[in-house]
Amino acid sequence: MERKQKKFKRSLKKAELSVRYSINNRNMTMIEETSTENIDRRIQLAVEAFQFLKNTTINERAEFMNAVADQIEALGEELLTTAHAETSLPLARLTGEKARTVGQWRMYAKAVATGIYTEPRIDLPQPEKQKADLRKYNVGIGPVVIFGASNFPFAFSTAGGDTASAIGAGCPVIIKAHPAHPKTSQIMADAITTVVTAFGWPEGIFSHITGTSYVIGAYLTQHTDIRAVAFTGSFNGGKALFDIANRRENPIPVFAEMGSINPVFALQRLLETKAETLAKEYITSLTLGVGQFCTNPGVFIALKGKSLDRFINVLKDEIQNVAPANMLHKGIFENFEKQKNVATEQSDVELIAEVNTETEGWQGSASIIKTNAQNFINNPVLSEEVFGPFGIVVECETPEEITKIAQHLKGQLTITVAATDEDARDNSKLINILKDKCGRLLFNGMPTGVEVVYAMQHGGPFPSTTDSRFTSVGPDAVKRFVRPISFQNWPDEFLPEELKNDNPLQIDRIVDGKMNSGSLKLQTT
Amino acid sequence: MERKQKKFKRSLKKAELSVRYSINNRNMTMIEETSTENIDRRIQLAVEAFQFLKNTTINERAEFMNAVADQIEALGEELLTTAHAETSLPLARLTGEKARTVGQWRMYAKAVATGIYTEPRIDLPQPEKQKADLRKYNVGIGPVVIFGASNFPFAFSTAGGDTASAIGAGCPVIIKAHPAHPKTSQIMADAITTVVTAFGWPEGIFSHITGTSYVIGAYLTQHTDIRAVAFTGSFNGGKALFDIANRRENPIPVFAEMGSINPVFALQRLLETKAETLAKEYITSLTLGVGQFCTNPGVFIALKGKSLDRFINVLKDEIQNVAPANMLHKGIFENFEKQKNVATEQSDVELIAEVNTETEGWQGSASIIKTNAQNFINNPVLSEEVFGPFGIVVECETPEEITKIAQHLKGQLTITVAATDEDARDNSKLINILKDKCGRLLFNGMPTGVEVVYAMQHGGPFPSTTDSRFTSVGPDAVKRFVRPISFQNWPDEFLPEELKNDNPLQIDRIVDGKMNSGSLKLQTT
Repeated sequence: MERKQKKFKRSLKKAELSVRYSINNRNMTMIEETSTENIDRRIQLAVEAFQFLKNTTINERAEFMNAVADQIEALGEELLTTAHAETSLPLARLTGEKARTVGQWRMYAKAVATGIYTEPRIDLPQPEKQKADLRKYNVGIGPVVIFGASNFPFAFSTAGGDTASAIGAGCPVIIKAHPAHPKTSQIMADAITTVVTAFGWPEGIFSHITGTSYVIGAYLTQHTDIRAVAFTGSFNGGKALFDIANRRENPIPVFAEMGSINPVFALQRLLETKAETLAKEYITSLTLGVGQFCTNPGVFIALKGKSLDRFINVLKDEIQNVAPANMLHKGIFENFEKQKNVATEQSDVELIAEVNTETEGWQGSASIIKTNAQNFINNPVLSEEVFGPFGIVVECETPEEITKIAQHLKGQLTITVAATDEDARDNSKLINILKDKCGRLLFNGMPTGVEVVYAMQHGGPFPSTTDSRFTSVGPDAVKRFVRPISFQNWPDEFLPEELKNDNPLQIDRIVDGKMNSGSLKLQTT
Repeated sequence: MERKQKKFKRSLKKAELSVRYSINNRNMTMIEETSTENIDRRIQLAVEAFQFLKNTTINERAEFMNAVADQIEALGEELLTTAHAETSLPLARLTGEKARTVGQWRMYAKAVATGIYTEPRIDLPQPEKQKADLRKYNVGIGPVVIFGASNFPFAFSTAGGDTASAIGAGCPVIIKAHPAHPKTSQIMADAITTVVTAFGWPEGIFSHITGTSYVIGAYLTQHTDIRAVAFTGSFNGGKALFDIANRRENPIPVFAEMGSINPVFALQRLLETKAETLAKEYITSLTLGVGQFCTNPGVFIALKGKSLDRFINVLKDEIQNVAPANMLHKGIFENFEKQKNVATEQSDVELIAEVNTETEGWQGSASIIKTNAQNFINNPVLSEEVFGPFGIVVECETPEEITKIAQHLKGQLTITVAATDEDARDNSKLINILKDKCGRLLFNGMPTGVEVVYAMQHGGPFPSTTDSRFTSVGPDAVKRFVRPISFQNWPDEFLPEELKNDNPLQIDRIVDGKMNSGSLKLQTT
């Protein structure tokens, strides 16, 4: 194991000179490449902090999380103006995202405190049947590495939902800051560290690793003391971490949310009656935030005909109302332009709508192409996510072609069925297939706007995420970072509060197979 | 993907002539190598059956599972005599294991019917806040491949807990029968198929694949339509499947339970007062069922001294009372003898107890060696599981050495702390470390005997299993085979029963963040 780490250290040195993220050149912020010595030290601190954190109760962690929420809430204008300068995101959007981030910490804290993710189960002893006293609950899995995302500098980054859910689970967090918003990340990291200090908790609870080299991410992921990884970003980035983690001597889970083309299936009756409204809704969702959402509806599938022509005609007009705006950073802008052009240059593809306004700087300019079902199925380029305001309309000759597309689809974060009730009744087979292809299935409406609620599933079959069994949005995100441990025949004194006889935390527990929120009356032996 | 499958088919043909399991030669049963054409056909049937099964309700699946339990219970003497002939396991043990297997189906059925693994969450719409109606529940992950285990021909094999939990989750099952008990497997498969037919369910719900070549397992695991794999067996077998699954174009989870050395840490006061009792308990557990349990306590760790000498002296005597008995099959016997001899021949190792009786056939003969802490830590051979009645006593010079061993340990299914309350109080740091190293932590007693209850955790950190977050024993085993799906704004008519407004299944659901078992009163819109 040690030899492996030395090898990584050598490759890290090389890589510092070569591979680099495309950074927003506007911010002349120098990003410090955290040294491997410092990374090792922070991970060692995290290992030590875990011995403390795993023995905190759900209430203690909830209190900590609420304090982080307060701390972030109290951050002044500096946070917003810094993030605005680093990401080009409008202040209004950032204000909303800050509130969402604060809300996430509070909501997850409340959920953690209910004990729902602790899942306590107690099977009382039955000496006459030689049955033992068995008590199980979920503990944190260990130190977790989290990669900040570029497109949500607050909600999916340093102090985002991944960090909140890992700490809620009882896991120390090592953040790999996204290099596109280094100052924002530092402000958030300081806020969390302030709370760690105020609580007198071990400093290893939270670490902030900075750097522009991919190798830092690889180094963190292969480190023998790391127990899980969370990532939001590109397929290539997420898949690389997934592979590293699985090839370790002791493999660990990687929760990578890698994006999606979020198809909209428009069924015939709905399209006939609402082509115009649907077009307006579609273009609004497609171009929201310069299309920089992982739930951006990149593909629109419908039957060829007059209704679809009406839909397309409205797209042509409506797209002119989309004001071009700067994308998150130069790298994202360049990638968007490149991928958009590659898709548009494929054979049997027609450009049907584009913004006529001239663009400047890193303004992503919306456009929509059209193709036929056969071409969409046969040409894998057209199923690749284009991160930005770009859509594909797929014209199908027959309902069977629509079904074929459904069967052909890879895993998606979301799929939308635009339908009347009658459409849905007539297309139950299609809808049944679509259920296997996504984490969230919408009936009308558009997929952008991922609500932070219990019932949210933000995670779909591969390749939209590496693990469709978990969500990265909503309090259920905590589940990613726990594992169960059973205690057999332990005296009450040594059990965690969550499993003690008198149920001091007053949580729901499954006792002998039945839900029970009381204390246990045991016969003294 | 198709090319890959062709390549696999070619390698399968070659392998049929070469790689083979070591089969119990006594049974001259010819094992049919299921052809890849038949495997492909069965997987296609499973894919079709999944479209049906995923839309069954928890009650329908529970009814099916209870019918399987009845069917197995009704199986006559033939099942027991066949299994006895194929495995050498005593009839009394097999009678108990049959009852356990029937009990598992009934218990898991009951658990599934409560909706606990469906985890329904509903967030009602708030139109004034533009919040959607979101409803989430767990569905089956898709067709699952399950590998039968040799050491539990009923409870961990064709109709074992893995099959029960996968069907409970709503997943069609493709069994790869263990070639050590082919006739037993066929009887169990027929029992399940009888119920599938009686229910009029699609035949693809359950498939029985036979063969002796490892390549069949690889072929099943790499098949693009398989969604998860469960395995109980050797590290090499489980790890190979894990690697294949992660290298697929669409990676899938593998739940492999790969065994463990299940250390017993005997603390000083307990050892002083109970050396003799402890020795008797230890030897009984170590040699139970000819040591062929994955929870066999293969290592005993304690401080050097008079108490440990007393413990060892009793071992020397007690081991003579262990009657040698046939192991499961020739391959297991040969492997046991080989591994036992390799361990015993290591340097700084002393043979301290062995059975004097002559053995014959495939009788595994118990023995115990002794070594020092430094040698145990430095020599990885001594940390390898020896499947059979073989133990290692590790003599430590100081309590610090005991802690070092704890830190050095890889993941285990179980760890036992043999201690008085005072010992436990004095060794809280040691116990805190041990929590990270196992799935089940015992306070005295011995780890063999894995109770089928909610609070059981049969699954520990790598390499004892590939995924410490799940258990393969107890109803929680169902969790391995589900994934969540969210429905946004769907009319009640199209929702699964589990999520409908009037809660027809009367299950507990989290509604707007609170537990709710009633029906929902919604304002009509």
